[in-house]
Amino acid sequence: MSKVGIAAYGKIPFTKDDHKIESTLHKSANDLFQKNPEIDKKEIDAVLISTNNNSKYLSPILSEMSGIQPKIAHSIESLCNSGTNSIVSAFSYISSGLADMVLVSGAERYDSPGQILEWDNSRGEFKHPIFWASIFSKSYKEKYNISDEELAIVSVKNHKQASKNPNALSKKTYTVEDVMNSKKLTDDLKLLDCSRPCTGSASILLASEEIMKKYADSPIWITGIGQKTTSAGFTKNTSLSSMESTKIAGQSALNMSNHNISEIDVAEVHDAFSVCEPMILESLGFTDPGNGMDMIKNLHQTNNFKINPRGGLIGCGHPLGATGISQTIEIIEQLQNNAESRQTDNPKTGLIHNMSAAATSSTVLVLEK
Amino acid sequence: MSKVGIAAYGKIPFTKDDHKIESTLHKSANDLFQKNPEIDKKEIDAVLISTNNNSKYLSPILSEMSGIQPKIAHSIESLCNSGTNSIVSAFSYISSGLADMVLVSGAERYDSPGQILEWDNSRGEFKHPIFWASIFSKSYKEKYNISDEELAIVSVKNHKQASKNPNALSKKTYTVEDVMNSKKLTDDLKLLDCSRPCTGSASILLASEEIMKKYADSPIWITGIGQKTTSAGFTKNTSLSSMESTKIAGQSALNMSNHNISEIDVAEVHDAFSVCEPMILESLGFTDPGNGMDMIKNLHQTNNFKINPRGGLIGCGHPLGATGISQTIEIIEQLQNNAESRQTDNPKTGLIHNMSAAATSSTVLVLEK
Repeated sequence: MSKVGIAAYGKIPFTKDDHKIESTLHKSANDLFQKNPEIDKKEIDAVLISTNNNSKYLSPILSEMSGIQPKIAHSIESLCNSGTNSIVSAFSYISSGLADMVLVSGAERYDSPGQILEWDNSRGEFKHPIFWASIFSKSYKEKYNISDEELAIVSVKNHKQASKNPNALSKKTYTVEDVMNSKKLTDDLKLLDCSRPCTGSASILLASEEIMKKYADSPIWITGIGQKTTSAGFTKNTSLSSMESTKIAGQSALNMSNHNISEIDVAEVHDAFSVCEPMILESLGFTDPGNGMDMIKNLHQTNNFKINPRGGLIGCGHPLGATGISQTIEIIEQLQNNAESRQTDNPKTGLIHNMSAAATSSTVLVLEK
Repeated sequence: MSKVGIAAYGKIPFTKDDHKIESTLHKSANDLFQKNPEIDKKEIDAVLISTNNNSKYLSPILSEMSGIQPKIAHSIESLCNSGTNSIVSAFSYISSGLADMVLVSGAERYDSPGQILEWDNSRGEFKHPIFWASIFSKSYKEKYNISDEELAIVSVKNHKQASKNPNALSKKTYTVEDVMNSKKLTDDLKLLDCSRPCTGSASILLASEEIMKKYADSPIWITGIGQKTTSAGFTKNTSLSSMESTKIAGQSALNMSNHNISEIDVAEVHDAFSVCEPMILESLGFTDPGNGMDMIKNLHQTNNFKINPRGGLIGCGHPLGATGISQTIEIIEQLQNNAESRQTDNPKTGLIHNMSAAATSSTVLVLEK
């Protein structure tokens, strides 16, 4: 398999703006090209769009707006996991030799139709993700004797980290009491335990090893890929306190990159709700089952930004199709020692974890410099 | 680049049924698995869905319905060209080594949102495809001195061929007079000049060379791929009487397969409207500019099913996301000498041409046994 790297990226602030999907997409692609004027758009063989938006033909539209005439042009949707699905697809086009350079642009509006799980009849009328998050929270708290106050630390930590991220939706910091006193949504979930829908986009340009030599001063390589879908419906999940698809995807990505989890220096993980962060850290093997909150508390107390330096979905906001790409950009900046006041200690190897619909599917990527 | 073949396919009749997209998708996937009980679903690494339907997470849904737990799972949309975009993506996953076997299932309902070009403001209020087809028809007729009666032969031929296809939406045959007397939609277009929206699905299973040895008695290989997007908006087209994206995609696919167009024995081409068929044949190089109708008339008179043996989009109906896959299945059956009363004379090399939105993008595939 030939090497695939990331030659450039573009990003914009996540907001509650009511902008059209086309202009939202174009903003991060435009940021990418403005920051990298040396890129020859004629060399871009594919433009992949990651979104849950219902608009059609967005890849040719973004291509026309950006002055690109690609070979391959389409949109990719897999709910919240669309961004990393698009990155893996771009990887495969380059690795197979069908493309040398692929633009991946993800975008979403605050009112994305991907936020309601219309298709899952096993959920009855409970089609909003807060319901699966409530079940996960109740189950995780019971199994490992974790309190609501402890889970609230995830939100406190990630909002703290997001306050250092100029593109985050939320710049405010909160205390455990703030989280506990925020609006109660269900028995097990408060407003500040949840990531919030928003409008945003993010773009990256993947390239073959040959092209990387031409464009990238500080090349970042995708060295590990793991993906798994266990089901569509939540009721098919085999466990309510761990994430099977994340376990499998994580192990596959680590195997492919020839690393073990202890060698991961920095990670973006899919904290759609507070409870997700300890569950993901355990499922990826960062810590033993039931110890996720101890790890998170320790990182928070020592001001270590290792997990979700960007502020996670809870702090940054969650524009579905853009999230996986935004997570990837954070890891690129971390590996390039370019993350300003969010910078972790000279990381060499980073990981991205992106998932959909109660972890019924997950993608894990390993990036290295 | 490692070889990629087609191990199995499934298909269902195209209808005007009001079935849900999930059950429509499942029907052709189910047909595939029923006809090929030897396939081990555990070996399916990816499930790609081709559709313009607004439902989300369809790949995990079809996977769960079919008993598959894939690594890679997402939907792909590029309007009418979604089907072959999905096939090329599947090819790249296998060729790159990320997957060994990929299920590609395309489906659409008769009321697909991809049928109105909402995004193209250059068209003013004229957002239905019949308007670009009218402009193409007027321009083509003027440039090459072709009559409405001559163009009508495309519909007569393709309906005749569809009458031999048990899965076609239309089984009726028509005369040139019938086409001329059918409802006038615009100055240059009658109802029988148009392909019709419908409900349908089609599935194929792509596999690596290693897997093909295990499953396929009569293996078919994808030996040529060409894709091109020139723009999104129709007004950016450089010509109104030829199709630039089709020319480029066709040449690329032929180059990759080491064939020239005279070696193509049978082809499915994207006759969304009568005028498209001669324009495509000329753009692919089957005949010189302006001679497309002569070629079509000759094929029709000699009862030669070389072009659109399935009956084309005009005869079969056009369930957008399923069309490119259905075209590919027809070429597989032709190459396997399995096309019953539509069978052409022992073809060795076949071609598929699939496009979107006034040929602003095209895909061309070459298949060989």
